[in-house]
Amino acid sequence: MINIGLLGLGTVGQGVVEIVNSSQEELKKLVGEDVNVKKILVKNKDKERSEEIPKEKITYRVEEILEDKDIMVVIEATSDVEESYKNIRKALEQGKHVVTANKAIVSKYFEELSNLAKEKDRAFLYEASVGGGIPILKPLKEEIALNDISHIQGILNGTSNYILTRMFEEGLDYGETLKIAQDLGYAEANPSSDVDGYDTQRKLRILSTIGLKGEVKENDVLVRGISSISSFDVEQIKKLGYTVKLIGETNIIDEKFTAVVEPVLLRSDSYFANVNMAFNAISLEGNNVGELKFFGAGAGKLPTANAVLKDVIDILKGTYRKKNILGSRKLKNRNEEIKGKYYLRISLGSGEIPEEIKGLAEKILDPNFAAITREVEFQEVDKLLANLNIQDEKYFLARIQD
Amino acid sequence: MINIGLLGLGTVGQGVVEIVNSSQEELKKLVGEDVNVKKILVKNKDKERSEEIPKEKITYRVEEILEDKDIMVVIEATSDVEESYKNIRKALEQGKHVVTANKAIVSKYFEELSNLAKEKDRAFLYEASVGGGIPILKPLKEEIALNDISHIQGILNGTSNYILTRMFEEGLDYGETLKIAQDLGYAEANPSSDVDGYDTQRKLRILSTIGLKGEVKENDVLVRGISSISSFDVEQIKKLGYTVKLIGETNIIDEKFTAVVEPVLLRSDSYFANVNMAFNAISLEGNNVGELKFFGAGAGKLPTANAVLKDVIDILKGTYRKKNILGSRKLKNRNEEIKGKYYLRISLGSGEIPEEIKGLAEKILDPNFAAITREVEFQEVDKLLANLNIQDEKYFLARIQD
Repeated sequence: MINIGLLGLGTVGQGVVEIVNSSQEELKKLVGEDVNVKKILVKNKDKERSEEIPKEKITYRVEEILEDKDIMVVIEATSDVEESYKNIRKALEQGKHVVTANKAIVSKYFEELSNLAKEKDRAFLYEASVGGGIPILKPLKEEIALNDISHIQGILNGTSNYILTRMFEEGLDYGETLKIAQDLGYAEANPSSDVDGYDTQRKLRILSTIGLKGEVKENDVLVRGISSISSFDVEQIKKLGYTVKLIGETNIIDEKFTAVVEPVLLRSDSYFANVNMAFNAISLEGNNVGELKFFGAGAGKLPTANAVLKDVIDILKGTYRKKNILGSRKLKNRNEEIKGKYYLRISLGSGEIPEEIKGLAEKILDPNFAAITREVEFQEVDKLLANLNIQDEKYFLARIQD
Repeated sequence: MINIGLLGLGTVGQGVVEIVNSSQEELKKLVGEDVNVKKILVKNKDKERSEEIPKEKITYRVEEILEDKDIMVVIEATSDVEESYKNIRKALEQGKHVVTANKAIVSKYFEELSNLAKEKDRAFLYEASVGGGIPILKPLKEEIALNDISHIQGILNGTSNYILTRMFEEGLDYGETLKIAQDLGYAEANPSSDVDGYDTQRKLRILSTIGLKGEVKENDVLVRGISSISSFDVEQIKKLGYTVKLIGETNIIDEKFTAVVEPVLLRSDSYFANVNMAFNAISLEGNNVGELKFFGAGAGKLPTANAVLKDVIDILKGTYRKKNILGSRKLKNRNEEIKGKYYLRISLGSGEIPEEIKGLAEKILDPNFAAITREVEFQEVDKLLANLNIQDEKYFLARIQD
């Protein structure tokens, strides 16, 4: 019998228990032994839980999992970072394999935890951390490992994509749509990491480090979010024949790369424009394989738990890549070279639009004020607006992709 | 040093040599040893070959590969079936691992060769046989192995998709477009297996057997091709707001499945309608993971060779599934239950359209003669037309999907 320790019983943890229960027979066929979730770490003693979770499996002390010699694999499925990072370290040091769905930890401690796992000859796997249920990291590590990847692009955050889709389909305002997303469980009480682009930044950092075979750090990725978009913007952008998506994009030529997360105006008939609701999609360009595109559920209980259990099966069967997971290529960031034309909308209430702003416009869409800018650097507009004391929430900026 | 024997030096074989040469260093990093294509079987002694192929590697006798104890992996990259099937058997019997890109062999001898490989404890891998460069079979075997797959749908043949795309984009006739495809190397001199749907049938048989975890035979898949489509059909179909794609589709409820390859009228804004030229796309529906879609180059030298070499790397690293590759689920075919509405065009020259045919129509598009039929069984129209002595090439039939 293979024993698993589960840290966390939120959405992902519950999904893991559910699939292990529903797929007992299939799992046994695949790995040759019964698979058992032996202990589950939870924080809140008083929370009501599904009847499917036997009370004797619940523990409040992480040591009961980390020090249990019968537990071979630890699944980390919490949403915190520092405490869970320490638990992952301890699990690896105790000789346990670790699977996590926690992109914040993978992004922050990617090299450190990968190296520790290698040193201890154990697996550290994280398929669920990018693209939810989409098989993307394993294909990137294995199926197209012989390719030079020149381009990675994706809609990697289901929450922001859900909000943008409903705003464009129904003309709702940002606040209303965020509220709906929160009520449906698509967005958290504090939605910042989703709507401000940090979640996408982390996922792009992970994808790029694997795909480019060299370290791409979180702060190598420029970020701009969608939280200041208004229904007025949606109207203007639709009139132009575009829609808006929060896109993460990495490009590399020779050893020099750019990496950006930002809202982008896409032609309505383009591929990413038609990835809607909480779905994710990722496009890659490799020198041998050409363009590949992957589409699927970017989040959700069962898709994410499916990806976690895929990693567990790979561990139990030894079918995961053990060497050179993170390449040693020395990459140089050239984000300062990024330029583009932008959709810019500013709301100053009764204030006059300063001449400097009008000077940015190549085409004025609304005198009060929406425009398409001339070609500018990534932070050029933000800097100008900051100098004019115009705060972030008073404008929306989105790159135009033709 | 790892030695590979290569059977065939056509497009795929050349691609294999090219990538092995260009990726020596990367391959060594991945597998820990140099990888060497030691011998290459060719048929034609007089053919001119690229200078990249050293003459001493060429052989005309397959025994020089099959009986070479230093050769660990045989890559089968020919286009014939019976002879290559025998060579694959011999290679496995000699204790060699086998990789093939040949879907006709995989489809015809899938269970037999998989069982032989299992018996000999060797790999028999065939990622390139479906979807060209798209990572699809490994994800299906590994990443979503815990899912019950209920639906598989795809554009699996690049040649027919190239022809349909150019006909719809440029209004060309079928004959002209086929000629262009042949001149560009997209279609063979005898294009039947591509345009009549047999290639798609084989790929759907392979995908379905893996995905459904039970045997789906070639003749479990109904087939209708595209070779009788005309520019008149394209005009009519465009007017209705549709495009046409050659679609393979498998559905299963409980243990009963349907499997069909046929031209389908798709709304122009649907996902598959926008998969153009020689690209392929595959959509899967799993109970845990939901819908997944994969897109990429369905053929071509480097994408296909990339998939072949992925299999080789998996063999050298042992990272492929060794047990229960083909499931033992007992499935029942219920193709006789398939019904649908069809676009039907008949060209009788000066002949009168028989009343029986008019009786099929729910809506007449052109009196001379194109129509949308009422709901009919898959072969109902063909049978009626055969009874009226109307030959295959005189009509075009395509299911309407809404």
